[in-house]
Amino acid sequence: MSQQVPALPDLPEATVARLPEYLRALHHLAESGNDTVSSEALAGAAGVNSAKLRKDLSHLGSYGTRGVGYDVALLIDQIEYVLGLTQRRAVALVGVGNLGHALAGYAGFGSRGFRIAALFDADPGRVGEHINGLVVRHIDELPEIAEAESIAIGVIATPATAAQSVADRLVAAGVTSILNFAPCVLSVPDGVDVRKVDLAIELQILSFHEHRKASLIALPAAGGLTALPGGLAATGTEEAVGS
Amino acid sequence: MSQQVPALPDLPEATVARLPEYLRALHHLAESGNDTVSSEALAGAAGVNSAKLRKDLSHLGSYGTRGVGYDVALLIDQIEYVLGLTQRRAVALVGVGNLGHALAGYAGFGSRGFRIAALFDADPGRVGEHINGLVVRHIDELPEIAEAESIAIGVIATPATAAQSVADRLVAAGVTSILNFAPCVLSVPDGVDVRKVDLAIELQILSFHEHRKASLIALPAAGGLTALPGGLAATGTEEAVGS
Repeated sequence: MSQQVPALPDLPEATVARLPEYLRALHHLAESGNDTVSSEALAGAAGVNSAKLRKDLSHLGSYGTRGVGYDVALLIDQIEYVLGLTQRRAVALVGVGNLGHALAGYAGFGSRGFRIAALFDADPGRVGEHINGLVVRHIDELPEIAEAESIAIGVIATPATAAQSVADRLVAAGVTSILNFAPCVLSVPDGVDVRKVDLAIELQILSFHEHRKASLIALPAAGGLTALPGGLAATGTEEAVGS
Repeated sequence: MSQQVPALPDLPEATVARLPEYLRALHHLAESGNDTVSSEALAGAAGVNSAKLRKDLSHLGSYGTRGVGYDVALLIDQIEYVLGLTQRRAVALVGVGNLGHALAGYAGFGSRGFRIAALFDADPGRVGEHINGLVVRHIDELPEIAEAESIAIGVIATPATAAQSVADRLVAAGVTSILNFAPCVLSVPDGVDVRKVDLAIELQILSFHEHRKASLIALPAAGGLTALPGGLAATGTEEAVGS
């Protein structure tokens, strides 16, 4: 029984997405010598409101102690356990162009529970190259290496045209989690998780805030909201109308 | 008055984060020749539930037409307007190492409402290099170029040690939105928006799903949940316990 992995709660996706933020804040607190932290302070450090933080942590069975707060070291252990970070999962990176080089050299991975265990490319001109102590292998070697290294996660940093074929090969090699940097949608069987990093989306979110700031500055003192396209409701907040 | 920017609704942050996903799905639908789309189909294409989609779009004043759905072209216009993507905002990229090269060549930006207008680095060995038709300038030239090019958004792709100083220079040059790829927290004045892309966080979220899948496979048929660390509640769902 001691070898068994205990069942994990089926957490809301939004909670899962916030746990790494809490973890980063907790590591920072621990490094600064804090043994306990209030929900307000932890929420502030992670950039969420404290009610949401308490709710998220209650899913893990962590409620803190009234007047004391959360035990920093214990909460780190709990979150790392739930995220499965105690196992230093082996990651295979496919595609060692500029982005692949950047990812292979990304210092954040090693310290956060991951180990880049293998690099692959289809270009014979790149195979054999050394990057951060690893040799780039040909993608045809994926099945053997995935098994030998117990690869759990595949990172796709190829052009969009190659990404689906790489995903198929990763799945065939037994990889069940894929992080996709190629600007395309992948189709994978049930039971395989894909997360897509789309750098343009982050810029579009920033663009909204730029646009909003510009609209606040440009508003005439006397009001007079211009019509938005297609009957878009110009329901300015008090802040927007009053400035 | 016609030059004025109308006021924008102060949307929930989670809605803002989903609008780019809707936009991508809508562009795909438009390219496939669809004039209208039901909330269910659009929600499916964007990977959210349809109630959430309808709520998000209601913030924009878009309710669709019963039995017809949403007008694809109109909804694209509305979302692009709200996100401020009709203006092809000028982006300055600071730091042209591997990640900076990858970002400068990222095809997704140009087609999604952005224009990389300037590249900067502090390394004299990189200044003068040509990347995708742009010349890398020295960071000391930032103030003049930011003004000449009306730079709205700064992207930081430097090492963590340089990032705060770059952020200070961007803010001093009038940039009010920053996308930070350096693994560090930036401090900026009120009114400046920062979004941080942390590649390890995406891997940690995937790790949770790997861990959870492993826990389902490892569970004995007769149940018998092992204790989680620190009294973590092993409240398995029916799916977890029953498989």
